[in-house]
Amino acid sequence: MPEATIKAAFQRVVSGDCDAALLPLENSLEGSVGATLDALAGSDRAKIRREVIRPVAHALMARKGTRVAVVLSHPQALAQCADSIAKLGALTEPAPSTAEAARLVATRENAAALAPREAAPLFGLEILADDLSDEPGNRTRFVLLMREDEAKPTGKDRTSIVFGLDRDRPGGLYDALGELATRGINLSRIESRPTRRALGEYLFFVDLEAHREDPAAKSALDALAKKAAFFRMLGSYPRS
Amino acid sequence: MPEATIKAAFQRVVSGDCDAALLPLENSLEGSVGATLDALAGSDRAKIRREVIRPVAHALMARKGTRVAVVLSHPQALAQCADSIAKLGALTEPAPSTAEAARLVATRENAAALAPREAAPLFGLEILADDLSDEPGNRTRFVLLMREDEAKPTGKDRTSIVFGLDRDRPGGLYDALGELATRGINLSRIESRPTRRALGEYLFFVDLEAHREDPAAKSALDALAKKAAFFRMLGSYPRS
Repeated sequence: MPEATIKAAFQRVVSGDCDAALLPLENSLEGSVGATLDALAGSDRAKIRREVIRPVAHALMARKGTRVAVVLSHPQALAQCADSIAKLGALTEPAPSTAEAARLVATRENAAALAPREAAPLFGLEILADDLSDEPGNRTRFVLLMREDEAKPTGKDRTSIVFGLDRDRPGGLYDALGELATRGINLSRIESRPTRRALGEYLFFVDLEAHREDPAAKSALDALAKKAAFFRMLGSYPRS
Repeated sequence: MPEATIKAAFQRVVSGDCDAALLPLENSLEGSVGATLDALAGSDRAKIRREVIRPVAHALMARKGTRVAVVLSHPQALAQCADSIAKLGALTEPAPSTAEAARLVATRENAAALAPREAAPLFGLEILADDLSDEPGNRTRFVLLMREDEAKPTGKDRTSIVFGLDRDRPGGLYDALGELATRGINLSRIESRPTRRALGEYLFFVDLEAHREDPAAKSALDALAKKAAFFRMLGSYPRS
């Protein structure tokens, strides 16, 4: 079931309406997805159970024999392919989504769409190029969220946490990370995000390459939680 | 002069075509702007000279006496106001930009635009609501980039750096941050970003509350640069 916003999808899991939500966490070109981080930090009622990393490819598709004068897509896709579209000598036109762009060009003259390649057969379109992205390696990391926090160690896991520190004092983050570093636990990601309460107050989203039931990780997380003004376990799950 | 992409605006400064570029670095709802971080990490030829933090408000505007059945705007603005638009009972329609939405509704029946309030008088529109955002406190931090790296201490400065560590070894980031923490230098922001070279390889973007010519900061940055496989000074500039 599609939802218009990340917040709405998250709420459907929390309310028990849906079993799970698949939400984007970070994209290699665009960075973190703030709405997902905020939802995770703001509620204890949905946990990360899986991560899925998917390549993002903007295929160019049109009706057979089309001379491409204009390219339709979601503005984000148009921006990520701006140089390639300019090389084609085509104009751009925004559409509400990549799928909607594919639907629209099925009945338009001289128009092509940027969309996932799976859209082409649905609307009788031909793929003119597999990926028009200006930068290769575009990937999105999604997380699967569920209410039940069932996290069995698999031997190659990741644990996501978020924490806030009491004051904006020098070295607070260093001290907190020390609990992990001195126990040999590797960080695969760290991101700071301003809280909405006060300027200069941050939440830190950290991913560890460990399961929270690993003895070293358990001891580090206990110590970190004691040092933090705010601490939330977001989940332990198999590394993709 | 407007540019279609962040990359293009950055290139105009590097090439000497323009004196400066004002680029978004982070937004309180959407997080970091990947294209700006990548441009800064990828070139030594433009430095941060100023930061500017601006509130983002999506004003609802229409012709006088309009009954609002549809709301036009950039998809990002429509998404940030989705709940409020639903409460109005209106439909949404994407436009290439917020300014273009304001221009379009000036000649349309039953349509309103979400745009910066400055757009209303330009197109003869009336402001129906000052800000339709679902979440208050939406702000964007911009940076002004110039070729000349002229950074005079003002007494209340920030320094932005980016660095990469040699191997993905446990504690590498902790060690690097130790150079700052042990000298009492506060971090106002830290963000990791995958390099495009290899999975699990990260660049760290760090903002310090110090000028790089402050003796403690200078010594910390020298030590950090020695530990890092990659180090780039992005600029010292007055805190906003």
